[in-house]
Formats: sequence, C-alpha cells, structure tokens
Amino acid sequence: MKLAILGSTGSIGRQTLSIIDEQVEITGLSCRSNIALLYQQYCQYKPQWLHIGDATKYDELKTLINDSSVTITTGSDALVDFAANCDYNILLTSIVGSIGLLPTIAAVKRGKRVALANKETLVVYGEKIMQLAEQCGAQIIPVDSEHSAIFQSLQGNNYQTIEKLTLTASGGPFFGRSKAQLAGVTAASALKHPKWQMGKKISIDSATLMNKGLEVIEARWLFDVAPDNIDVVVHPECIIHSLVQYCDGAVIAQLGLPDMQLPIHYALHYPTRKSTKLKRLSLSDVGTFHFYKPDMVTFPCLALAYQALQMGGTAPCILNAANEVLVQHYLDGKIGFYDIPVGIEKALNKFDIIQDYSLTDVQETDTAVRHYVTTF
Amino acid sequence: MKLAILGSTGSIGRQTLSIIDEQVEITGLSCRSNIALLYQQYCQYKPQWLHIGDATKYDELKTLINDSSVTITTGSDALVDFAANCDYNILLTSIVGSIGLLPTIAAVKRGKRVALANKETLVVYGEKIMQLAEQCGAQIIPVDSEHSAIFQSLQGNNYQTIEKLTLTASGGPFFGRSKAQLAGVTAASALKHPKWQMGKKISIDSATLMNKGLEVIEARWLFDVAPDNIDVVVHPECIIHSLVQYCDGAVIAQLGLPDMQLPIHYALHYPTRKSTKLKRLSLSDVGTFHFYKPDMVTFPCLALAYQALQMGGTAPCILNAANEVLVQHYLDGKIGFYDIPVGIEKALNKFDIIQDYSLTDVQETDTAVRHYVTTF
Repeated sequence: MKLAILGSTGSIGRQTLSIIDEQVEITGLSCRSNIALLYQQYCQYKPQWLHIGDATKYDELKTLINDSSVTITTGSDALVDFAANCDYNILLTSIVGSIGLLPTIAAVKRGKRVALANKETLVVYGEKIMQLAEQCGAQIIPVDSEHSAIFQSLQGNNYQTIEKLTLTASGGPFFGRSKAQLAGVTAASALKHPKWQMGKKISIDSATLMNKGLEVIEARWLFDVAPDNIDVVVHPECIIHSLVQYCDGAVIAQLGLPDMQLPIHYALHYPTRKSTKLKRLSLSDVGTFHFYKPDMVTFPCLALAYQALQMGGTAPCILNAANEVLVQHYLDGKIGFYDIPVGIEKALNKFDIIQDYSLTDVQETDTAVRHYVTTF
Repeated sequence: MKLAILGSTGSIGRQTLSIIDEQVEITGLSCRSNIALLYQQYCQYKPQWLHIGDATKYDELKTLINDSSVTITTGSDALVDFAANCDYNILLTSIVGSIGLLPTIAAVKRGKRVALANKETLVVYGEKIMQLAEQCGAQIIPVDSEHSAIFQSLQGNNYQTIEKLTLTASGGPFFGRSKAQLAGVTAASALKHPKWQMGKKISIDSATLMNKGLEVIEARWLFDVAPDNIDVVVHPECIIHSLVQYCDGAVIAQLGLPDMQLPIHYALHYPTRKSTKLKRLSLSDVGTFHFYKPDMVTFPCLALAYQALQMGGTAPCILNAANEVLVQHYLDGKIGFYDIPVGIEKALNKFDIIQDYSLTDVQETDTAVRHYVTTF
C-alpha cells in the first residue's frame, strides 16, 4: 500500500504514522510549517515527494533534504499538483480548512481512495464530491471517529434501509454550563478538551459544538441521509462513537476507547480489519454511559449548522468560512465566545445562497465571506 | 415466504405471528397443549399442517378443525415428520427443551433456513449442527436477542477477524443480591423478570444466570469462537443486546429497546431489513447505561456453563439436561435455589464425557442425566 499524507505533522498525520506497519509505503508528506518534524518523518519514511505550505521555509527544506530525486514543493497550487501526481493508492487528507478541497478533488479524479480527515471538503462541497467520487470510482472513507463509526455500522447493510444516523458528541469542555456562565469564557479554557487531543481550531469547534454541526453536514453527504434524519446525542464518555438506526428499528453502533488511531487504521485497511495493539474497551471498567439531548440554546452553533444545511447550496460554505475566521479571532482574543455564532448568523443572512453551485461559486463565496467576517 | 412455527402458542411464536405481514404464508403450526390458541391461529392463518404435542388433545383438535385437507399430527416422532415434510422456506424453532433437536436437524438436512429460538439444539449438539448446516446449505439464523445482536454486528465483516464476543445480561431479577440473601428465594420471585416477558423455564434460567451460560455455549458454536473469547457483562438496561470486538479493537454492537419482535423479524427477512413500527430507541430518554462484571459466586450456574464448555463433548448436554430437570423441581417447590447448581455439578462429575459424540450419545446422555437428577 502506498500512502501519501496531507498534513503529516498534525495530530492525525502523526497518529497515522505511529500506527502503520512496514507494509505501508509512505510516498508523499505535506505540512504547513513544521519543518523539523517533516524532516524527521522524511528521514524515517523516505517519501518521494515533500510539500511545505509555508514558502519561507522551502529553501531550508531543500537544503536539509539535499537529494534531487525527491520532489519538494511549496504553495497551495503545488499541493494540488502533489495530490494529482504523487504516486499513492490512498491519500490521507488530514489538513484543516478549505485548503483541503482542491487536493481532495484531484485525488478523487484519479479514482483513488481518500481517507478523509478534512471536514471542510464535505461541508462546502459534499454533494458534488460524492457525485464525482461515484463517477470516478474513487472511495471516500471517513477518518473522523463519528463518521468512521457510522461507516463501520453500515457494513453489510443497504444504505436504503437507513432510517436515522445519530452522531455522538462529548459535549466539549463546556458541557452542562449555561449561556450566562460562558459569556466571558476564554480560548484557553476552551482548549482543554476532556476526551480528545486535537488541534486548536477543532478544539474551539468542539467547545461551541460547531464541530458536531460540521459533522452533521458531513454525514448528510457521506451517507446521503436527509438532515431531519441526522441526530446528535451528548455522550460524555465518548465510547459509542456513533449509531445507525435502520428501518426495522435495529440500531448498530461502533464503540471503542477514544483513540483516533482506530478509525485511521480502518480507513487504510477497509474492507478488511487488521490487528492492532490499541487498548481494548472494557465495559465494566467504564461502568456507566450517559446520554443527553444537546443544548442548542447554550450552543447555538449546532443549530446554525442544521439551519445552513436546510438552506442548502452554498449556505454550509458560508457557515464554514465565517466560522474559520471567527474561531481564529477568538483564539487571538479579539472576540468573545458568543461572537462566533452571532457572526456566523450575520454572514448567513448577508449572502445570497447559490443552490446549484459550482466549485468556483464555492471558492468565491469562501473568499467573500472571509473578507466580510474579517471586517467585523 | 412460507413459514412454519414449532411452538406457535409460546411467547416467541405469538410475537412472530404478531409481526408478520401478508407476504408471509403460515404453512405449519405446532404447540404442546394450548389447543384453544392453536385453533384460533389456525382460523386466522389456515396452515396446511397442525401438530399438537399432547396426544390426549389430538382428537379434540381433529374435531375442531374438521377438514381432511389439513394434516394433523401428535407426538414427538410426528414433530420430526412435520419439520421434514411440511412445506416451508423458514422453520422457526421456538419450542423449549431438547425436544427441539430432532426437528431442527430435519430442517437443516433439507437445506432450509432455521430461525433458531431453541437454545438446547446448539447447547447439546452445536458443533455438529453447524457442520451439518454447512454441508446441507442450511442457514441457522439466531432469534435470541443476544445472538441476533452478534449476528447483526458481524454483517459485512469476516468471522476470522472476531477477537471477542460480549453477551450482555440483564442480571435477572436477583442482580445485586448476595448468596446468603438468595438461599431461600422462591420460584415466584424468580419469575418476576425486570425486562423481558418470558416463559417459566427461561425466567428461572435468567434468575440463576444459567440462561446466559447456555447463551455462551450457543455463541461458541454459532460463531465458532473459543470459550475464552466469549465474555458476559451485566447491563441492567438491556439496550445493548450484545457486542463483537474485532482484531483491530473496534467494537460493533446492536442496540434497541428490549423487544423480541426485532430479532424475530430480522431472522425472517435477513439479509434485508424491512420496515417495522416497533418503538424506536431514544438514548437521551434512556439516559444511562450501566455495566458490571457478572458475579459468578452468587450465580454459579454461569461458571458451570463455562466449565462444561471447557470440558467439551457431551458436558454441555449433561449441564443442560440436569438444569432442565432441576429447574422444574425448583418451580415445583421441591428444591431450593442453590440446589440447581449443586445438582448440575454433581451430574457433571458423575458422567463420563464423550468427546467425539454422536446424536445417539447425546440422546442417551440426556436420558441418563434426567433419570439420575430425578432421583436426587
């Protein structure tokens, strides 16, 4: 198996490299700016292609590698080139943000398997990319633990018999708090997630429940299920990773200790299951599972995601672009916690929704929304 | 679909008739002695074959039906004849006890689907019947909620990748009690099961945890999993019906409200899922799941079942025959709660285990053990 990774120095990228065995050949690695780790990964896996997003580090990387047989690239156009031309069977797209979209399209057009850990691709272009994958014979296998759980729970079943999907949510670091309690909450406390180790952007999205909202949108396209038939339940223990309810009333779920290595491993080896040494679940050790309805008053971002999905077309793109900028502003201490949903709602009301959208529409919408939100 | 039912007036039989639609043709019905209900079922479904176990009621049944085109039989030999000659695609074996064995073999030899709700067939003859089913192209689809859950959780997966099966147990009516508290407990309180409506024999087995022990033995043969890799966890809410852990560490489970109609429906329609109007699970309404290690000191029958499985050969047959007689004695008020495991252990120690057993060995062992245990 030949594997190329977009975002190899991030959380998912590192966990992927930690779980692969010698039968997996790493053919390409990309990162944004962590040149030290990228170089270390290069020395261990000897990929033929390295990409660094930050152009200011390109020369340093070239000097470090000092091997003309290795393709070394920089910039977002070259990232698409990487996806379009690097030699791989599976592209793991573990980069954050809408920068993942074009490389993913390139891989899909080649009919490759995409192990998808880039939410935004499905959020802004989900309907189209699933159609494209079908046309090109590409496989989009989710790496997100929730979508992997649903995907695993669907094996051996006909998608036509799905009645409802239930995404589980940890509830995030602010579960159980009220709106008043959260009004002045800082990014630092939002970054302390109880169950999952994640990047900063996703950690804030987890605190606002926007992460779950984006996952609802992803699930809608990945599994072709209407928004009304996608549910969220808060399950603070994070053991049931998500569930599928079928038309006969049976519910199938995937469970496990919270560890991203499992869904990564499954996405690489699907449809077979290969042995791992990951820690096993003991139900009696966990002892208790709790389930709660999500609180959409305290966490309006989840309601906004459902709203964007109902609006259709480019509305999820607007939601996502606004959220990306606002989360960065929140991380930078420029705005408060509730300025995130307020800003997203303003953006959703400001822009016209293009229902039958093209890739260009999505890209232009993304740019325009980011510009608009930056001016708040 | 043509369906014949062994045990149509029992709990499973009645629930089956309540869930089928007009596409299911009932071709044969059998019961032990409930002639009134059998006649009512005959009037509604007009099967071609009726069987009544109790020979003293045969003439009354014949007079009631008064139609020479309907085959009416009585006695255990005729029950095998029913399974061997009635016109059906699926035989539902929802009769209690080892009387279910020979008719099941007859159905398997015809290469039919057996919707198996007769535990004893697998407990006393599991290894052989699974081999026979493979030879004859018959399908054995479990109806027990736990085994149905495992079967559903295995769809789309290779049985070779099973690492562990976990059967969930309600814990029964005496969950949480100590051995001292249960010493003098009566059958009447044992019959009050918190979650499932069941017959008397199974209710007592549920109180002693022998029911779970028999299910472990069933699972061992149904899914070809070594006894060490079959676990039991007490889950009083009875929502997770059982779980499969795979070699990659992923756990797949089937969940639902406790209702036997779902596994019955699945066994009839497998591999498709057809819509039902059964009440749906709401995780937030249930709110909490609990899990506990089973207490094998207070409930030694579960440990005895594992022991019989480890002893192999006819040991599970000895366990089952002794248990059937002792449970009846307990129901009759002749012996105490803990005389059940004590008697089973005596029987397991008394008889030689035949490792490479035949059907005759099983039948002779069954008879000899019943005789022995009756003399206590």
